[in-house]
Amino acid sequence: MESTPARSQSRLDSYVDRYAARTAGMTASEIRALFAVASRPEVVSLAGGMPNISGLPLDVVSSAIGDLVTQQGPVAMQYGSGQGVPELREQITDVMRLEGIEAHPDDVVVTVGSQQAVDLVTRIFCDPGDVVLCEAPSYVGALGVFKAYQADVVHVEMDAHGLVPEALEQAIASVQASGRRIKFLYTIPNFHNPAGITLSAERRPRILDICRREGVLVLEDNPYGLLGFDQEPMRALRADEAEGVIYLGSFSKTFAPGFRVGWALAPHPVREKLVLAQESATLCPPQFSQMAVSAYLANHDWQGQIKQFREMYRERRDAMVSALEDLMPAACQWNVPDGGFYVWLTLPPGIDAKSMLPRAVTARVAYVPGTAFFADGYGSSSMRLSFCYPTPERIREGVRRLAGVLEAEMELRATFGAAAPERGIGPYQGYDAPGTDLS
Amino acid sequence: MESTPARSQSRLDSYVDRYAARTAGMTASEIRALFAVASRPEVVSLAGGMPNISGLPLDVVSSAIGDLVTQQGPVAMQYGSGQGVPELREQITDVMRLEGIEAHPDDVVVTVGSQQAVDLVTRIFCDPGDVVLCEAPSYVGALGVFKAYQADVVHVEMDAHGLVPEALEQAIASVQASGRRIKFLYTIPNFHNPAGITLSAERRPRILDICRREGVLVLEDNPYGLLGFDQEPMRALRADEAEGVIYLGSFSKTFAPGFRVGWALAPHPVREKLVLAQESATLCPPQFSQMAVSAYLANHDWQGQIKQFREMYRERRDAMVSALEDLMPAACQWNVPDGGFYVWLTLPPGIDAKSMLPRAVTARVAYVPGTAFFADGYGSSSMRLSFCYPTPERIREGVRRLAGVLEAEMELRATFGAAAPERGIGPYQGYDAPGTDLS
Repeated sequence: MESTPARSQSRLDSYVDRYAARTAGMTASEIRALFAVASRPEVVSLAGGMPNISGLPLDVVSSAIGDLVTQQGPVAMQYGSGQGVPELREQITDVMRLEGIEAHPDDVVVTVGSQQAVDLVTRIFCDPGDVVLCEAPSYVGALGVFKAYQADVVHVEMDAHGLVPEALEQAIASVQASGRRIKFLYTIPNFHNPAGITLSAERRPRILDICRREGVLVLEDNPYGLLGFDQEPMRALRADEAEGVIYLGSFSKTFAPGFRVGWALAPHPVREKLVLAQESATLCPPQFSQMAVSAYLANHDWQGQIKQFREMYRERRDAMVSALEDLMPAACQWNVPDGGFYVWLTLPPGIDAKSMLPRAVTARVAYVPGTAFFADGYGSSSMRLSFCYPTPERIREGVRRLAGVLEAEMELRATFGAAAPERGIGPYQGYDAPGTDLS
Repeated sequence: MESTPARSQSRLDSYVDRYAARTAGMTASEIRALFAVASRPEVVSLAGGMPNISGLPLDVVSSAIGDLVTQQGPVAMQYGSGQGVPELREQITDVMRLEGIEAHPDDVVVTVGSQQAVDLVTRIFCDPGDVVLCEAPSYVGALGVFKAYQADVVHVEMDAHGLVPEALEQAIASVQASGRRIKFLYTIPNFHNPAGITLSAERRPRILDICRREGVLVLEDNPYGLLGFDQEPMRALRADEAEGVIYLGSFSKTFAPGFRVGWALAPHPVREKLVLAQESATLCPPQFSQMAVSAYLANHDWQGQIKQFREMYRERRDAMVSALEDLMPAACQWNVPDGGFYVWLTLPPGIDAKSMLPRAVTARVAYVPGTAFFADGYGSSSMRLSFCYPTPERIREGVRRLAGVLEAEMELRATFGAAAPERGIGPYQGYDAPGTDLS
């Protein structure tokens, strides 16, 4: 092509006094800038949440999608319904049944990934100043959405079994006493991103009871529920509470993220508003993507594929956990997740994960500092480590590099004194000692 | 599959006091309900804006997309950049060059259709109560977005040559005098949806001058610019003003809508915020869709394809205009578009397009009443007729049915008296008498 013209030279923002108030919360995090560096091939990235899709049967997918074009091209490449392709919505009810949910396809709304489902739900419920209850820590992508709609996030303590019911009750009472409205509780009950924990079977009805009693809607976000390594999937919260739970699902981790196909399962009046919000946002979710996912589900043993993924992720979980045990300083703590993608590691007192990150990238390893997963500034004593994408060998190498950086940091602190300790509630630290749970 | 459970029985909205304030503007229009009926096969729908994609080479597309999976599957099916696939952004600059725009791929942001581009631009600029200037009439999808963000729309008069500069100046002065902020002028300069008009070459610099002088940003929405029947594409507004124009494009009408791939070309600081907004809304636009569009552009004579589309749409335009001339009562007025999808028809005095619609659907023809295209209640004396989708024979049949309905309506009015006449500015009516311009 012809030479491209010079890029716009204007670095000053001449629009600075025109933006909407909500953009004040839309700033590029420094973490984002660092990841441009972290994605270089010589860096072992334990930071990203990209599923490893190298095991997908490309010939099967290619053939199914090719047939989709030749046999249904004029439909697959046309505008579709704002609510999503009916056949796919039916298939989605089959997927949800694996976690105990019985639902009607009419109550499913297809979204551009479950990220968009979080966005649309927040759009229809949250006014500026409304409160969203989240776990401590919570998923960075959701925190960004709540901030974009100027909602206030209140974090609620978790332990090794998930959300602590008493902490939830206290948080609700405290917010109500301050005169603010709680619009919903946002929870990731399975293989939590970033904490790796699963809400226990004993806790689930207790959490639902509290929310029912207090009139708090539950937004259940479940991208990893089918990615447990050894056990059958747990019953979703939605399986035992239809009217009070909005359930979000995704094909990103069980098939592939590049189609951007997720969904919300919502009570009828909420579903109506979600469809209107979708039509305003996009007219309709991508028809082609949906029919491609639908063709995949119809033409391939997708459940067998998920089993393969689980084995692959289990192997990587094992590589990470054994590397942590062998290589990390004893003063660290981490959980052993039994599914999903993440380990949540807490550093020795006085070490700050955020300020350590540039030194880690220099040593060619990347992670996400815990501060990304809190709306209130906490989290600097923890980090999220992903084992989903690199090979087991690379994972071990990454942990080796990280241990080296940490040891250097600890020496520095021993010589010059600790960073200010974190105060107050927030960071999740109350889990079992490392190495006790490899099952 | 097993029998599906009963649908949620609750029709009462128990969430009614929880929704965000912005949902007050998110109501299902009665038009939408009517279209569920209008999409039945026995109804000739002159209502929809679905491009006719039956001419696409399905074997070529199938093959290109099949190869995409086998050769680049792990990339095409993975998460991508929030700004969009770099190769596609380059190809987009080639597409825009056809309309005189010289731009750098870095200033392009890929969106989920240009509808999402309107949504994201509004999200970053409009606070509740801000003003957006629109043509009279304007595109229903954009009006819905502005309403969803609680912006006020002020319509500005058009004539046969597009936006009237004096009317624009008056509207700006009037809004400023009322103490409100104008965030941007939203314009569809080519083959306007729904009015079918094109902003003339003489008017373009005048509109830009006014906006520059008054500090009004221009949001140029151009899905149809390459679909003129006889003439070369006009220079985009953006071709002559880079910092003051945000340009929106789409592959929906020049390739196919089902991939939902559009874009915004924006000055650097605005582009930064759009990318952040996109990441919050979806993490990233669908990678697979983008690479499919990219493969199509790389593997097929896409410009030749557009030529074919133009011939096909020209034939349909001719069918509609000749049918209108032959069959509609003389008291109607309509324009003859020289590109795009739509004719804007104004009814004889006293006839209300909105109240006539149920009778039209009963007679098995559908159109969109003009009221859908105004934020202020006007438009009932006009309707939008689409010629893009049905065959020429069906188009003629649809006009025949419509003429019958209209004649019956006119008799009714003659017997019982006219509906209240529309008052004030708003509906665009100042165009040439029918039949004078078939070029």
